[in-house]
Amino acid sequence: MTSTPPPADRFPVVGIVGAGQLARMMIQAAIPLGIEVRVLAEHSGDSAALVSPHVEIGSPNDADALRNFASRCDVVTLDHELVNLDALVAIEAAGGVVRPGATTLRFAKDKLYQRSTFQRAGLPVPDFVDAPDLDAVEAFSVRHGWPVVAKSQTGGYDGRGMWVLGDLDEARALFASVADSDVALMIEQFVPIERELAVLVARRPGGEFVTYPVVETVQRDGICHEVIAPAPVSEEIAARARDLGERIAALTGAAGIIATELFLVGDELLINEVATRPHNSGHFSIDGCATSQFANHLRAVLDWPLGSTDLLAPVVVMANLLGEDRASMGPRMRLALLAAAPGVHPHLYGKDARPGRKIGHVNALGEDIEETRARAALAAARLTGRSV
Amino acid sequence: MTSTPPPADRFPVVGIVGAGQLARMMIQAAIPLGIEVRVLAEHSGDSAALVSPHVEIGSPNDADALRNFASRCDVVTLDHELVNLDALVAIEAAGGVVRPGATTLRFAKDKLYQRSTFQRAGLPVPDFVDAPDLDAVEAFSVRHGWPVVAKSQTGGYDGRGMWVLGDLDEARALFASVADSDVALMIEQFVPIERELAVLVARRPGGEFVTYPVVETVQRDGICHEVIAPAPVSEEIAARARDLGERIAALTGAAGIIATELFLVGDELLINEVATRPHNSGHFSIDGCATSQFANHLRAVLDWPLGSTDLLAPVVVMANLLGEDRASMGPRMRLALLAAAPGVHPHLYGKDARPGRKIGHVNALGEDIEETRARAALAAARLTGRSV
Repeated sequence: MTSTPPPADRFPVVGIVGAGQLARMMIQAAIPLGIEVRVLAEHSGDSAALVSPHVEIGSPNDADALRNFASRCDVVTLDHELVNLDALVAIEAAGGVVRPGATTLRFAKDKLYQRSTFQRAGLPVPDFVDAPDLDAVEAFSVRHGWPVVAKSQTGGYDGRGMWVLGDLDEARALFASVADSDVALMIEQFVPIERELAVLVARRPGGEFVTYPVVETVQRDGICHEVIAPAPVSEEIAARARDLGERIAALTGAAGIIATELFLVGDELLINEVATRPHNSGHFSIDGCATSQFANHLRAVLDWPLGSTDLLAPVVVMANLLGEDRASMGPRMRLALLAAAPGVHPHLYGKDARPGRKIGHVNALGEDIEETRARAALAAARLTGRSV
Repeated sequence: MTSTPPPADRFPVVGIVGAGQLARMMIQAAIPLGIEVRVLAEHSGDSAALVSPHVEIGSPNDADALRNFASRCDVVTLDHELVNLDALVAIEAAGGVVRPGATTLRFAKDKLYQRSTFQRAGLPVPDFVDAPDLDAVEAFSVRHGWPVVAKSQTGGYDGRGMWVLGDLDEARALFASVADSDVALMIEQFVPIERELAVLVARRPGGEFVTYPVVETVQRDGICHEVIAPAPVSEEIAARARDLGERIAALTGAAGIIATELFLVGDELLINEVATRPHNSGHFSIDGCATSQFANHLRAVLDWPLGSTDLLAPVVVMANLLGEDRASMGPRMRLALLAAAPGVHPHLYGKDARPGRKIGHVNALGEDIEETRARAALAAARLTGRSV
């Protein structure tokens, strides 16, 4: 790998560390762009490995595997954050190109660092504190009352690594349960959420960026079930959300897609999470925007000019497909049913269905929010075998 | 291979014979549908082989290779017509599923059979005659005058296997040049073409079908350069074109996409060619329609319900990228330039540029025909390195 551009007469090679559905959808976006994609997969049956002719098997925590992989790519990007940060730093130090780079990725991997840095920059975050011991929780609860939210400082997502603590006894039990692990905890104020919003920015290394329409994400049990684009909020709130997403993209030095999840509390926006890669809240863009988040991620990490983020319909709704059990998921039969739903686009990840696992999503385009939501929900139910 | 459906708890396997750009774009469409695609490629560097993890190397004329390939697929479909018809008949006789089947494919492979059958069915075709010898040409010219059009009865496309003969001397020279080959010729009247139109139908084996908007195809030197959707013709002519496409889909027993190319002469429509597969005239549908021709082809050959063919913009223009020379084609630099063109979607086939070779296409969505054509043409010129 080298930081000089590839020769102009061959197609560039983008390496993706991790082979989940995000990598799979990047591969789909890479085909018409003539980009060769290589994936570093943990298992040959991973979602993206099923559709890639260039699969290497290796762990994202194995520095040697990462270095060897990077040596065969013009630029390396990521399917997820669970990557050896020191190894990425070493690759960059040796002249390799990793986008997003290690300094950006740290914001997604280390939540305490993220909150501290954002707070210092004057960005609105929930009140928080490092919680090395129970005393820290108790002191925090004196200021904020109960409940409080405990988070693992690294590694959590989709509701994992996050606990709502009702009192000191629950806090004590949590600390006891993680005592023998290397989990470091932080504590945040419990926010009475009204809505959750998300804003995606695609940013080139030099700073040029495009911003996707602000969306509402509808969660159940900490997992995103539905995304509504554009978010049904006032233009003033949407503008503030866009502004926060764009400031965070610049502050983190993002390269590629950066997703900012926001809490809306009354009229106030608070930063929830940041993901420095394509994100579930942007899947609507595959069918719903002039350029999908996956195409713009590839363009951004290759430092190519970015595509338009214009919506192709007044309303776009994404509904995730969450696995029930294996027997309930008959891809062929479900698709046959689904395909009858006009204007609903299925996206399957090639995964076995397990309860709660994201096995795909659908996008519906429409004119009216409730009609479009109903159509997406019906298609999602048919595809996963839930009764409606 | 068996004609019983695949088990409901695994994803179906579609085999494609041939690995050109049509197979490549089918692979792109198969990813979100969770369909596993296998390709039978002649060379490992073929357009679709570059993006498929399931490539077998073999000739479409090798009956053993076809049979072995088919045994690993739930259904077999085709990237092109240059396939051993007898081998397909044998696979079908053994219970295999080939879509389109041999009886449909014969219409694309054997132009004399196609013309005769269409004529008997009362469909409008140019006057034609089998031309086993020069006497047949002379007799035809007495009825129609010169020039006449000579065609190879099999194997021709994109202006190859087609000759405009100005007089008997030219006809004599052509017969002499093919005397030692197995080329069989037919002769047709020379049609003073006003416009060329095309209509694509996606048809399921049981007869259900959807029809794409009728398009105008703009040819130069017998090669399609540009497609305009919808065709700028009266609704009455468009309706007659749709009707012809749908009658031909039924008559040929099509399964998957069937494309009918039409001549518009004054107010009259005449059938030019038929392709029993996805077709260059339908590439606009990838970005321009609710469901692309490639997604509907896969749905149709799997006998799944078909998707909407609605246009996503008032005007969609496709421009082919025709290679100049290798040095002029710098994918990375060209794309960087192209990407700056708003609302133009590049589709590259991963091919080396050779003069006249189709190496990709672009789709532009817009409101106004001339503005959209200009934008597509500019992007195509930038990508191929032509001066504008």
